[in-house]
Amino acid sequence: MENTTRTELSSMGEFGLINHLVQYFIPKVDSTIKDAGDDAAIVSPPLGEHLVLTTDLLVEGVHFDLMYTPLKHLGYKAVIVNLSDVCAMNAKPTQFTVSLAVSSKYSVEALEELYSGMLAACETYGVDLVGGDTTTIANGCAISITAIGFNKPEKLSLRSGAKPNDLLVVTGDLGGAYLGLQILEREKEVFLAAPGVQPLLEGYDYVIARQLKPEARLDVVQLLEQLEVKPTAMIDISDGLSSEIIHLAENSNCSFRVFEDKIPVSPEVQSCAKELNMDPTTCALNGGEDYELLFTISMDDYEKIKGNPNFSVIGHATPVGEKNILETKGGGVVELKAQGWKI
Amino acid sequence: MENTTRTELSSMGEFGLINHLVQYFIPKVDSTIKDAGDDAAIVSPPLGEHLVLTTDLLVEGVHFDLMYTPLKHLGYKAVIVNLSDVCAMNAKPTQFTVSLAVSSKYSVEALEELYSGMLAACETYGVDLVGGDTTTIANGCAISITAIGFNKPEKLSLRSGAKPNDLLVVTGDLGGAYLGLQILEREKEVFLAAPGVQPLLEGYDYVIARQLKPEARLDVVQLLEQLEVKPTAMIDISDGLSSEIIHLAENSNCSFRVFEDKIPVSPEVQSCAKELNMDPTTCALNGGEDYELLFTISMDDYEKIKGNPNFSVIGHATPVGEKNILETKGGGVVELKAQGWKI
Repeated sequence: MENTTRTELSSMGEFGLINHLVQYFIPKVDSTIKDAGDDAAIVSPPLGEHLVLTTDLLVEGVHFDLMYTPLKHLGYKAVIVNLSDVCAMNAKPTQFTVSLAVSSKYSVEALEELYSGMLAACETYGVDLVGGDTTTIANGCAISITAIGFNKPEKLSLRSGAKPNDLLVVTGDLGGAYLGLQILEREKEVFLAAPGVQPLLEGYDYVIARQLKPEARLDVVQLLEQLEVKPTAMIDISDGLSSEIIHLAENSNCSFRVFEDKIPVSPEVQSCAKELNMDPTTCALNGGEDYELLFTISMDDYEKIKGNPNFSVIGHATPVGEKNILETKGGGVVELKAQGWKI
Repeated sequence: MENTTRTELSSMGEFGLINHLVQYFIPKVDSTIKDAGDDAAIVSPPLGEHLVLTTDLLVEGVHFDLMYTPLKHLGYKAVIVNLSDVCAMNAKPTQFTVSLAVSSKYSVEALEELYSGMLAACETYGVDLVGGDTTTIANGCAISITAIGFNKPEKLSLRSGAKPNDLLVVTGDLGGAYLGLQILEREKEVFLAAPGVQPLLEGYDYVIARQLKPEARLDVVQLLEQLEVKPTAMIDISDGLSSEIIHLAENSNCSFRVFEDKIPVSPEVQSCAKELNMDPTTCALNGGEDYELLFTISMDDYEKIKGNPNFSVIGHATPVGEKNILETKGGGVVELKAQGWKI
């Protein structure tokens, strides 16, 4: 870090620290009536809209490694993973809270970096930080974020609405976040073996950015509204395409048939996978953390999304009782299995 | 614990564990449209009401000590401290989420105990668990809960509405939770010095219950509604009466004069404080964790609350610029200082 001053957390009381960290967060969302600083925040729900509410907990050593995760990126990503869950309901995120437990190894300046990433997320997504809590912990760091958002009841998409013959659509491209993690882990090992060696990250910008600075597809929620397409079911891709397809299948009481050659993989992912002797399809299916949206639409809506570069139709829903199938490029079929993260 | 089976967390996948833990939580609140199991919960805000949103993080070794905190009580208290914050806005709690980070020293049975306490809180307060997250952590345990609630905009009470001459009112009695903690800490020291010795907890039931099983004063929110009293400002007592009075003063831009002989202290607190050579008033002022409500009302509302055993009028607001004063039983005056918990 450029900032070399180190201010100990213990030099500030709890309230002083919170006030210091949130001083640059100015509420901008119309529905924010009262932000941090009282017993609770107050939000005015848009008339006739439902609230969606989601929470995610990130733990150092489990979900992130500070050896290669800049704190600003960590703060940004911690917010994004929650906004992505709100978007996956086809709702628009509006406010969030942050609870933070940090050990004394963190300085005030380190937390400023972390919060600067959260502030960047507020500005990019037009959401407000409206409360939280800061406390000590013996070791490491845990970040708990809860995000809320709103939309009209009839616009919200659950995981459970897919019907046989619905088309399965994914946004963006997949596998990048996983490959970014592999590159970062590789360079960490090199560094640990020979601490003088500079990490070799050049040429991997895309996949590293996918890992360290993911985005929530709020643009897709807005685009679907413009196109007047309501997904029959939707989920975000945090654990890998394969695992998320199985979630949709189980919740919707149907199955899916997916075509390998339709799964969107970027040229950067292709070349990085090749270099690491990995199969790009496996990275897309099992990698996770791409935070793209996976959804189903009625066949009647196909014309509305056809040709839009944000969307790839990768398969369709089949009746319950069939297996979830991947039809490979070679024409074979394999059953999709969940390979996502386990506790 | 009676249950001597030990099932390792690693024997269940993340989704299996969550599903197992939440299986007995059946949503009962009208506004709960979709509980856990999707990307986010869905809540239907009552027409014309505002949402309040609060979050609290409890960390093992900082906020609780498992040597004397039964896991069921911990689960109950973790929910209560959040419901108390909702009540402190003069709102009615409706839903909450739980994020849990636990080390491998916790068994599935231990988490079942923890969740059984949360379920008890759901039943007592008529609230729904609507989501969450479970993950591993290297050491200890962190519990992050976010609670929401609703009320009409004109009914909500901030910390900032007190005016000079408003009466300062507190619910219940104070100092018990702090003394309960002292007794538990004392018996822990005895146990650590001589592990065979049984802890001496008899006769301390009231103060120990105040520490281990606090309640949120939802009954007071309902009572105030019946009495048609809207607090001009309100806060809950988590850090001690003195600290909370200062919060009200700072946020309302006024000061307070408090009378020691009006501060409600139970006979159990009196006798326990005496035994421990402590001043009961100091326990009430600086102890914290009583989760009673502290609020101000217009003098015009005095007749409505007079004589109600739930309320003690302990002082009144004075103009800004004056000191926050405690008038002692002996007739002296001392300035109130915040002695609450610091990070």
